[in-house]
Amino acid sequence: MSSEQRFEEITLEVKSIFKGKIIDVDVETVQLPDGGKAKREIVRHPGAVCVLARIGERVLVVEQYRKALGRNLVEIPAGKLERGEDPLAAAERELQEETGYTAGRMEKLSSFYSAPGFCDELLHLYLAEDLTAGEAHLDEDEFLDCAAITLDEAKALIENGKIADAKTILAVQAWELLVLRESAKRA
Amino acid sequence: MSSEQRFEEITLEVKSIFKGKIIDVDVETVQLPDGGKAKREIVRHPGAVCVLARIGERVLVVEQYRKALGRNLVEIPAGKLERGEDPLAAAERELQEETGYTAGRMEKLSSFYSAPGFCDELLHLYLAEDLTAGEAHLDEDEFLDCAAITLDEAKALIENGKIADAKTILAVQAWELLVLRESAKRA
Repeated sequence: MSSEQRFEEITLEVKSIFKGKIIDVDVETVQLPDGGKAKREIVRHPGAVCVLARIGERVLVVEQYRKALGRNLVEIPAGKLERGEDPLAAAERELQEETGYTAGRMEKLSSFYSAPGFCDELLHLYLAEDLTAGEAHLDEDEFLDCAAITLDEAKALIENGKIADAKTILAVQAWELLVLRESAKRA
Repeated sequence: MSSEQRFEEITLEVKSIFKGKIIDVDVETVQLPDGGKAKREIVRHPGAVCVLARIGERVLVVEQYRKALGRNLVEIPAGKLERGEDPLAAAERELQEETGYTAGRMEKLSSFYSAPGFCDELLHLYLAEDLTAGEAHLDEDEFLDCAAITLDEAKALIENGKIADAKTILAVQAWELLVLRESAKRA
């Protein structure tokens, strides 16, 4: 479509608003393509991983309280990257910490920005298969339940709003497309 | 799975860090389920809409520069809710502003949180059909190109990373599942 440069916004000034444990916040003054100026509020995030972990016809999900929403959500296992951490290693670590399972095979399905309008968080989605059960090791401020659910159960949880985050809905759809491709191959 | 209350975190203190044009940032001190304390960094956002706008075998996408990422992305039309605005009205407004098109039919496909670990942004995804072309009206700090692409083109753009945000990948998958259901119905 466009040349990469045509819409570029040149940074004129960066004002650091907040440096937190998980996010930093900057306000940048930018020069627009037409020469005008605008402010951009930007949340910096280290990036994260999430895992679609298949056990036969089920996948692992965790239910946890999300303070930003004031409610519980059912999500696929996920967590943020530690400094300098390889996404694949982070996916293996988060799966093990939150569910106890280790995966014989891990394959990256996609990487995507969660909220590109104001945040640089990049999420890496992995497919984990050939799972072996073990013991979970939660962070000290982490409390959650783990379960293995079928595709129909996942769709019902989306329908009733217990699953309600982009990465999990995206992963459930990827799972459905995978199942359809696998059954087309068998037919 | 869990009872809704079991993992609740009680707010002990809210510290307002930033009140911006698009986001606010708070740090909350919370009491954990085991009685311990933790800090939660929370980005408050008014919510947003995005539109999967079908014209025959194509959908509308826009390419724009995302300052948070320092690069262009190809995305479905989207934008944040204005204060008190109904999501359906916002979807109609954003589609018209960014692409010029108005929709004879709009149907909500799903609502999802973009980054529930630290942000309360809720995105509403609409399917728009029966489209009529018109003139786009961009915001004064908004610069973008609009195009209509096929499902195969959308998948290629995901593959090469030009489409790389959760809402657009989620919408393209929803589109693929819709097309598969429609062709199964015809068969």
